Amino acid sequence: MFDIIIVGGGAAGLSAAITARQKGKSVCVIRPKDNDSWIYKAEKISNYLGLPDISGEEMLAIFEKQAVEMGTEFKIGIVKQILPTGESFFASTGPDFVEGKKVIITTGVSQPRQLPGESRYVGRGVSYCGTCDGMLYKGKTIALIAENEESHEEMQFLSGVVGKIYLAPTKLHFSDLPENVEVMTQPMKEIDGTDLVDKVLFGDDWLQVDGVFIFRNTTAYSTLIPGLDTDGNFIKVNKKMETNIDGIYAAGDCTGKPLQIAKAAGEGNVAALSAMEGSFG
Amino acid sequence: MFDIIIVGGGAAGLSAAITARQKGKSVCVIRPKDNDSWIYKAEKISNYLGLPDISGEEMLAIFEKQAVEMGTEFKIGIVKQILPTGESFFASTGPDFVEGKKVIITTGVSQPRQLPGESRYVGRGVSYCGTCDGMLYKGKTIALIAENEESHEEMQFLSGVVGKIYLAPTKLHFSDLPENVEVMTQPMKEIDGTDLVDKVLFGDDWLQVDGVFIFRNTTAYSTLIPGLDTDGNFIKVNKKMETNIDGIYAAGDCTGKPLQIAKAAGEGNVAALSAMEGSFG
Repeated sequence: MFDIIIVGGGAAGLSAAITARQKGKSVCVIRPKDNDSWIYKAEKISNYLGLPDISGEEMLAIFEKQAVEMGTEFKIGIVKQILPTGESFFASTGPDFVEGKKVIITTGVSQPRQLPGESRYVGRGVSYCGTCDGMLYKGKTIALIAENEESHEEMQFLSGVVGKIYLAPTKLHFSDLPENVEVMTQPMKEIDGTDLVDKVLFGDDWLQVDGVFIFRNTTAYSTLIPGLDTDGNFIKVNKKMETNIDGIYAAGDCTGKPLQIAKAAGEGNVAALSAMEGSFG
Repeated sequence: MFDIIIVGGGAAGLSAAITARQKGKSVCVIRPKDNDSWIYKAEKISNYLGLPDISGEEMLAIFEKQAVEMGTEFKIGIVKQILPTGESFFASTGPDFVEGKKVIITTGVSQPRQLPGESRYVGRGVSYCGTCDGMLYKGKTIALIAENEESHEEMQFLSGVVGKIYLAPTKLHFSDLPENVEVMTQPMKEIDGTDLVDKVLFGDDWLQVDGVFIFRNTTAYSTLIPGLDTDGNFIKVNKKMETNIDGIYAAGDCTGKPLQIAKAAGEGNVAALSAMEGSFG
């Protein structure tokens, strides 16, 4: 059981981590394997106080080193859901989970563009975890969206379980495609069914499927934490970085513009201090 | 005419400065000569992302170097008043002033403990600038509060003009006290008069004076910008760091808790971006 779970390892998450570690709290940062944050790709950042004219990659390396040296624990994974138990929270990365007393969301600005029908069928044919739900589709037909690094392993597993996979066009390169995987030429556009998913739309053609597996680096807030107050693509917070859910905080780009490193680091610092107040302050 | 005037040279002010300089705006930071910020005195700061385990003095030196190298102009002085002209603002340091299109207040947490009667008599016997108002008291008797570095020069000037100075007990060391300066043993407690100041209370004794000169490193918000919305000792701002006065922004400790460097730097960054929006964005 960690004192604080931080979802996301950018400037906001790492600033929250060092703030909490400095006060001796246990911290677990959960972040995707591949760093696709926009900071990482920035050639030169010139407006972060203390680190003049530095590339985004160097800056993140300095931030991570500081967090590691201060005793932050890291877990590689994509948080699929945060479940409150009343006394704590479970952050599920699919087959695995981390338990913590408080949660700080620092997932950046990118929210997935969900497909029509996707959120309606979560748990009723739409899944974000192959190793968790794959066995429910033994011998059956599924559609698959592969956008993150986990996709390789997940598809490998699923192809050994299900009968047939329709793979949506993807930027990822798969070297050895299993025989039962058919790579589609048209994008997946919609998910539909009755009580359960029974078809997906590729281009103009509806294909019959029993399930849809989606692997992305981000989880929609509505799936991540049902009931979380949002404003468009951003999480609503007050000045203390509290969300509408007790024990859950947010910081950085996910709380709104301007999308700036200094703002993210400042908010992460405030979120951690707020999370430490009260129950274990 | 500067694009942006920044009042205060701590983390918030310098973060605002580099953010505006990075966009090519002209910036003037006005700060007191002696750095009495709490950062400056901190032995070790461990929760600012990017600069692990560093003394406050080193940290401020790094921040200032970055701001200087990016072309920020600095002016040493204590801003006594900010005057709106409708098209711009004049930041008066007493005898001198700086003109700018926008103003960002980053004066930190310290608000002066004003004396009873002080704010009532501003401009009617209470003055914060010896070289400006001294001649009005030629040959007369004044009381003087000396709390900042400027006090030396100001008292030197005033002692050559007025008849008599009652100097309130001070932590400053004056090597050559002019003959017409009497150092009091009891603190100054109150200022009173009718339309104009006519007496001050030292300990239990009311002494007749014609004016009171006060030299501190901070100016009360009510004197600095009449009409500025505050909440106790803090300036009220919205998420964009806008105050209630168009063209005036605030950032850092002066906007409220937590009093943290990361929060101050983040707010300074946001304030500068907001100030650059619109009229010369």
